[in-house]
Amino acid sequence: MTDIRYDVVAIGNAIVDIIGRCDDAFLVKHGAPKGHMRLVDAPTIDTLYGAMGPAIEISGGSAANTMVGLASFGARAAFIGKVAADEFGRIFRHDITSAGVRFDSKAVDGRAPTSRSLILVTPDGERTMNTFLGISTELDHGEVDPDLIRSSAVVYLEGYLFDRPEAKAAFRQAQAMAKAAGRRVALTLSDGFCVDRHRAEFLSLIKGGIDIMFANEAEITSLYETASFDEAAARAAKDVPLAVLTRSAKGSVIFDRGTVATVPAEKVEHVVDTTGAGDLYAAGFLFGLASGTSMETAGRLGGLAASEIISHIGARPETRLAELAGSRA
Amino acid sequence: MTDIRYDVVAIGNAIVDIIGRCDDAFLVKHGAPKGHMRLVDAPTIDTLYGAMGPAIEISGGSAANTMVGLASFGARAAFIGKVAADEFGRIFRHDITSAGVRFDSKAVDGRAPTSRSLILVTPDGERTMNTFLGISTELDHGEVDPDLIRSSAVVYLEGYLFDRPEAKAAFRQAQAMAKAAGRRVALTLSDGFCVDRHRAEFLSLIKGGIDIMFANEAEITSLYETASFDEAAARAAKDVPLAVLTRSAKGSVIFDRGTVATVPAEKVEHVVDTTGAGDLYAAGFLFGLASGTSMETAGRLGGLAASEIISHIGARPETRLAELAGSRA
Repeated sequence: MTDIRYDVVAIGNAIVDIIGRCDDAFLVKHGAPKGHMRLVDAPTIDTLYGAMGPAIEISGGSAANTMVGLASFGARAAFIGKVAADEFGRIFRHDITSAGVRFDSKAVDGRAPTSRSLILVTPDGERTMNTFLGISTELDHGEVDPDLIRSSAVVYLEGYLFDRPEAKAAFRQAQAMAKAAGRRVALTLSDGFCVDRHRAEFLSLIKGGIDIMFANEAEITSLYETASFDEAAARAAKDVPLAVLTRSAKGSVIFDRGTVATVPAEKVEHVVDTTGAGDLYAAGFLFGLASGTSMETAGRLGGLAASEIISHIGARPETRLAELAGSRA
Repeated sequence: MTDIRYDVVAIGNAIVDIIGRCDDAFLVKHGAPKGHMRLVDAPTIDTLYGAMGPAIEISGGSAANTMVGLASFGARAAFIGKVAADEFGRIFRHDITSAGVRFDSKAVDGRAPTSRSLILVTPDGERTMNTFLGISTELDHGEVDPDLIRSSAVVYLEGYLFDRPEAKAAFRQAQAMAKAAGRRVALTLSDGFCVDRHRAEFLSLIKGGIDIMFANEAEITSLYETASFDEAAARAAKDVPLAVLTRSAKGSVIFDRGTVATVPAEKVEHVVDTTGAGDLYAAGFLFGLASGTSMETAGRLGGLAASEIISHIGARPETRLAELAGSRA
């Protein structure tokens, strides 16, 4: 039996975000679906970058953001993802490791650049993502370190990886390894459009042994093809032991083996940029889980982390979340 | 006689800032002089980057920030500086051109990387810069486009360029071209340590025909080797027709051919990061000058732009300065 050395290990896209502001008309003109993530090819990202205004670069990636948030709370986190041996790869590695997250994945030279996402933030604070996957598309089961999986209490899978066939194989392998070692497997659905593209496979993965599912309203209603959040939530509660559903300003609802906890959202004076809200909610929740708190407290920690991230640009915390949690305790 | 097509053309370092937070002990440990800029070599920047925490990347460069600020006010600005054909060079070009600044300098391939500055921000909001000049050291008079110089009402020279012999030649050439075309030449002293390294040459350049000098308290007292701001200011007022002296929270003092204008600083609730405060003051002042305002008004516009930049991370404005100025008018 391997000892537990990490609270959570995540498998996800290793991405550097390029964040700029635009108005709604810009999104329409460039066919970017507001509030969603779309995958774009190299010529499209060049066109979009040429058309958009000044930007700033910040390390991102959904599950990577969650691991950085976890480390910021003081938990032990690790990350598996693929970067190239280029400037963006160096930036990604520096930021995640200096935040205290273990990241051993080797950089790959010359095949494709490190993944990047052009994130357009509208005046309402909503973010719309245009992701060029680059080297991330090559993540496969070769990257999944069995020892790391076995030594982590929770394996956290990023739904965005479902857009790549090789990564699905890595998911199934990680799921099997974790199960065999008696670890829990968590899945975040990531995006309503992504769920729509891969609904059957998501359902198959979930029913095949997901212990904890994270989803927002758009994602869970897309998964179960219903307009009713309550209906989708009831089905999620049947499919997984622990379903953690976020509803933006309406807070979150947690279904834990027959019990339900409803947690209000933190008040935020001015929403600057919603990038990473779901990722940081998951960080707070997973920290609560690792600390053995009640579901309500875990949900509150999630809401607290989300409120920090939406009050500034970028999906990496600017405040040490352990201190933020301490000041609210 | 060439027509005026630009209010200001600047010659400066083309830099991408890598901004992170640290405490004062970190600066001491790594020998970084607080509040100043120091030049570092490639191994030093690697060591420092490895030791510092997570960072974000934002286009910077002192005179480049000033030109972006000018464009944000609605003025016509151009920039001359050297970037490499790499990711940071692409980022720099994208950000300055999409902000509305003309930037024609060609990227150079494979000789040295685009310049970068590791900026460490302490809890008091003070910034300490560690700059790796890379390709910027190769800027020379070949980059100075005579037509661009002649068609700009003001040529703005960044003092930091004095750290490179080739750039000094470019300065003198630009100064001569501007003078011959009847344009005004402005100089910013950039940094007290930089002035200390090149005092005699700065004084020679200033006395050889600088029309407008920008300096803060540390820079002007370093230039004239006196502890007294008043003494240094009196000497500056003799050496140049227009001396614009900034004093942080004490505001600014402007000496314009025998007249003196004293302008209080804008109130800022919470100083987040002082990076770019002087650069944006210069932007506001030069905008006032281009618009034919009084010296007091130009100083107020400078203070307004500085107050915007220190209220967030990075030295590029997040708010359109023309709107900010309009709302205060």
